[in-house]
Amino acid sequence: MRTRAAVAVAAGKPLEIMEVNLDGPRKGEVLVEIKATGLCHTDEFTRSGDDPEGIFPAILGHEGAGIVIEIGEGVTSLEVGDHVIPLYTPECRECEYCLNPKTNLCQKIRSTQGAGLLPDGSTRFSMLDGTPIHHYMGCSTFANHTVVPEIALAKVRKDAPFDKICYIGCGVTTGIGAVINTAKVEIGSTGVVFGLGGIGLNVIQGLRLAGADQIVGVDLNEGKVEMATRFGMTDFVNPSKVDGDLVAHLVELTGGGADYTFDATGNVSVMRTALECAHKGWGESIIIGVAPAGAEISTRPFQLVTGRSWRGTAFGGARGRTDVPKIVDWYMDGKIEIDPMITHKLKLEDINHGFDLMHEGKSIRAVVEF
Amino acid sequence: MRTRAAVAVAAGKPLEIMEVNLDGPRKGEVLVEIKATGLCHTDEFTRSGDDPEGIFPAILGHEGAGIVIEIGEGVTSLEVGDHVIPLYTPECRECEYCLNPKTNLCQKIRSTQGAGLLPDGSTRFSMLDGTPIHHYMGCSTFANHTVVPEIALAKVRKDAPFDKICYIGCGVTTGIGAVINTAKVEIGSTGVVFGLGGIGLNVIQGLRLAGADQIVGVDLNEGKVEMATRFGMTDFVNPSKVDGDLVAHLVELTGGGADYTFDATGNVSVMRTALECAHKGWGESIIIGVAPAGAEISTRPFQLVTGRSWRGTAFGGARGRTDVPKIVDWYMDGKIEIDPMITHKLKLEDINHGFDLMHEGKSIRAVVEF
Repeated sequence: MRTRAAVAVAAGKPLEIMEVNLDGPRKGEVLVEIKATGLCHTDEFTRSGDDPEGIFPAILGHEGAGIVIEIGEGVTSLEVGDHVIPLYTPECRECEYCLNPKTNLCQKIRSTQGAGLLPDGSTRFSMLDGTPIHHYMGCSTFANHTVVPEIALAKVRKDAPFDKICYIGCGVTTGIGAVINTAKVEIGSTGVVFGLGGIGLNVIQGLRLAGADQIVGVDLNEGKVEMATRFGMTDFVNPSKVDGDLVAHLVELTGGGADYTFDATGNVSVMRTALECAHKGWGESIIIGVAPAGAEISTRPFQLVTGRSWRGTAFGGARGRTDVPKIVDWYMDGKIEIDPMITHKLKLEDINHGFDLMHEGKSIRAVVEF
Repeated sequence: MRTRAAVAVAAGKPLEIMEVNLDGPRKGEVLVEIKATGLCHTDEFTRSGDDPEGIFPAILGHEGAGIVIEIGEGVTSLEVGDHVIPLYTPECRECEYCLNPKTNLCQKIRSTQGAGLLPDGSTRFSMLDGTPIHHYMGCSTFANHTVVPEIALAKVRKDAPFDKICYIGCGVTTGIGAVINTAKVEIGSTGVVFGLGGIGLNVIQGLRLAGADQIVGVDLNEGKVEMATRFGMTDFVNPSKVDGDLVAHLVELTGGGADYTFDATGNVSVMRTALECAHKGWGESIIIGVAPAGAEISTRPFQLVTGRSWRGTAFGGARGRTDVPKIVDWYMDGKIEIDPMITHKLKLEDINHGFDLMHEGKSIRAVVEF
């Protein structure tokens, strides 16, 4: 079949909207009609050429929602008409990682996914001239139709709006999951969140959901205050307005340091600040942001010996097929909010404008609807 | 009263054996006759002048055992004749830290202890000319008699030999506790231990006690193999004999990385190796060693985002008054071994020779008996 997609033809180039070929689903694969997809910084990281592992040409996008329109041989957990969210972290439920309750990093299809291929080592997308187009994070949601392995699709309820729940495919789950699955924040905790973008806001609402008493947001942009407050922020700190040491300021503000701190900036210097303002004895700092290639975090080991923990999270520690449907329920039940974060709706033709909005700090999430 | 002590008169100087004045215990304090004390690298760190927080003159030593010979006003948990182990990490059971189950870092007397003073801000020791002599880590066990706060004394059974259980005051508890209290190693785990000195050997026997399946020891000194094997090491790696990357070698040896890794070297480069050979998805690396002043650890944040945790431990996460008596029981019941690690017995006059043995790598623990 043919479908329409935004193709990343080369590093650093704008995406090109074009018709592409899409082969049908093979064994264990599913053809999905994408109804909506968010634009995430990770897509832009790859599009821009900053991602050293970027492969071109490719169809980017990993934050989508859609409908199953065809299933391949052997697919048993999904049927035509099911509503699904593609998962860049799959859940095979049989690999060493899926069977270890400490991690969500299913490795079943990691090597082919990292190479921009489906599990059998090939692509389903190609240019009209036959040139193969790579998949991206196993999802490729910047296309009206895509083929995804069965183990990388979460089946969700049919009454949930695609243009909102697509965000659960990455940002919402990453932020809320960092709080709930990775940090396992307890009621009454204090938290500090660095970076009040699309991830940070979801960390904030995750902290609220977990019953945190104090939720401190840290950002250089005062324009983030209103939205962050709406999602549960109790205190705002603009580092550019702090006299003296930011760590000391945050330690004082949180009464000795925060129980949990979260970096949602990807800046390694901020990651250090996040660790060091965690409470002596028990504070945990969770790295969510993706740092530039080659960047390193550092601190004095004394920070750890005196009881702080430095950890990280990917996809919020969520097991997608199990956890994503629950988060969709939370949204539908009003336990979490998504609507105010979807600040822009675009048509596929305007997708490059969505990246402009991201760079200008004007959008939290821009969503392309098909 | 007067007692005999090894006094650190100035940074970098050998300890001087001399008679000193010792005032009796004040409110909340206890006079202890020290029967035996181990020599630890931390004592040498301060003696040598490398410790930027070192205060002189002082009576060092923090790994002792002895008998209560006088109690001060208000002391209720100890009586004359009790056998005790002084605790450089006290346990007041009422501060914010003691009341938080996540930490053992009682802060009740931290500021005075750090300043070489007892909690009322004064010293009990003085030179015969009246010059005050500072306390050290709240213990000062390099003296035949010392005064210690009640909350910094663990009461232990009377049939346990002082010349062995003194080691529980630091090295044994630090190593075993790192496994049991901090890492909470599960049966069947894999562990890698960097540094097979007095701490590392205890990490190894802690892993054995916890039921680890594979216990890898890493050290440049092949002379450590026999003793480490005796304590439970299943695999030995000499980094100088590994072709290529040590991390890759250890990841392969442990079948994908270790569930738990421990640094007992204090070398920040080794700490990085320890983190990076922990298993993707769930591996935890615990820093035990004390790094040189100003040294920093570093890694790519990707190591944490892909599921490794970087943590630290002080005094093995043990709450001394509660846990140290249990460890003495474990020793007396044969669950752990100490005797082979006490490689040298010295008289107080020969204490400087004990530091020579340490530097030469000839001793695991040298113990001074009074």
